[in-house]
Amino acid sequence: MNLILLHPGELDQQGQARISDPRRLAHLREVHRATPGDRLTVGVQGGKMGKAQLIELTRELAIFALEPLTEAPPPALPVHLVLALPRPRMLARTLEHVTALGVKDITLLHTKRVEKSYWQSPELLPEKIHQHLVLGLEQARDTRLPSVVLSKGFRPFIEEQLPALLGERRGLVAHPGMPMECPRGISEQTLLLVGPEGGFIPWEVEKLQEAGCQGMHLGPRILRVETAVTALLSRLF
Amino acid sequence: MNLILLHPGELDQQGQARISDPRRLAHLREVHRATPGDRLTVGVQGGKMGKAQLIELTRELAIFALEPLTEAPPPALPVHLVLALPRPRMLARTLEHVTALGVKDITLLHTKRVEKSYWQSPELLPEKIHQHLVLGLEQARDTRLPSVVLSKGFRPFIEEQLPALLGERRGLVAHPGMPMECPRGISEQTLLLVGPEGGFIPWEVEKLQEAGCQGMHLGPRILRVETAVTALLSRLF
Repeated sequence: MNLILLHPGELDQQGQARISDPRRLAHLREVHRATPGDRLTVGVQGGKMGKAQLIELTRELAIFALEPLTEAPPPALPVHLVLALPRPRMLARTLEHVTALGVKDITLLHTKRVEKSYWQSPELLPEKIHQHLVLGLEQARDTRLPSVVLSKGFRPFIEEQLPALLGERRGLVAHPGMPMECPRGISEQTLLLVGPEGGFIPWEVEKLQEAGCQGMHLGPRILRVETAVTALLSRLF
Repeated sequence: MNLILLHPGELDQQGQARISDPRRLAHLREVHRATPGDRLTVGVQGGKMGKAQLIELTRELAIFALEPLTEAPPPALPVHLVLALPRPRMLARTLEHVTALGVKDITLLHTKRVEKSYWQSPELLPEKIHQHLVLGLEQARDTRLPSVVLSKGFRPFIEEQLPALLGERRGLVAHPGMPMECPRGISEQTLLLVGPEGGFIPWEVEKLQEAGCQGMHLGPRILRVETAVTALLSRLF
């Protein structure tokens, strides 16, 4: 928790913030070993960042006095990430990685090789997803939550969502064996599509290419989804 | 397990391989759902890769008939990674990520902000480390195990090991706030140093710079060690 992310509802008119959830209170006590008087980095969800002084810390409550929050959060990556739904534990970690890296738009997609049972996982409950996004923001000192959309059909995604997504973005499909290497250091708006363990099936790659996406590869090594996504984002941007 | 990694001792003179450890047997049954006759990708530790036909699969034993193994493992990254020892769970995952990405030389280093207790973790037992390296190789379809060296003192590392490591490598220290951005797409032999959660202390960065390492940053975001290492390797090479 390199940033204490405050919900706007936790602020009062007097420039104080009160937090009372056990997770952040425990972190303040056990990791920060914070005591009244300490100045810590805070940010308001969706807004700016700065310093705040800890006024009081009990088992139930922490009170901060905010200094003026003037620092903008770090820039976002110019990417909309479309990720074939990974297995639940991998999803949790991947959401944290990509949020920390600055992704703001995430679509979780069903593809042929996604196990249908993954869509029933409690990790997909909005509050669980939210929790992983918050962990990513707290890690990277960012305040802007990504949006996460679930897209449970491949064909409806291709037909109904993809054309609009590609209207203003370069589409790139990461897939082993494609002739093009993953580009480096691009700055254009990008739609990045990443398949499941086992990859997209050939028909899916064809459909994506027909819609205007370019295939590209990251080399001969087969990476786990969480490693591949981080490697792709870091190389692309 | 995208590759069944065979120990040379598991091969016989007749071109057959026998494996009997519960982990791989369970994986063959439950993930591959392999049955006799299936052709699977195998590789010999330190050697070549190819296909093998499953001859027999029981609770205790799998027997493969190897076809000629002619495929070289994928190229290694030109890097020696010096990583401040992460907390045990993070170490386990980071070893898998970097092995899958092709790192062959790893030094785990003590620095001021590494908790001393981490050096007592069972995750540092040679057989535990070996296990994570094997998982990384099996994931990425590689056969060459990285070497992992434990370096439990920062000053002895600087004085006794660093000069030789830098003799034939470009030294790069990843550290927030450095003026240089992380280079992209380099191919020279590199010594990459990555600090612990909380970073190197300024004195450590100075010592590394005095020895000839260049500082560089990966942007304003603070990343977890496992995310940062993957992002650095993917951007550098």
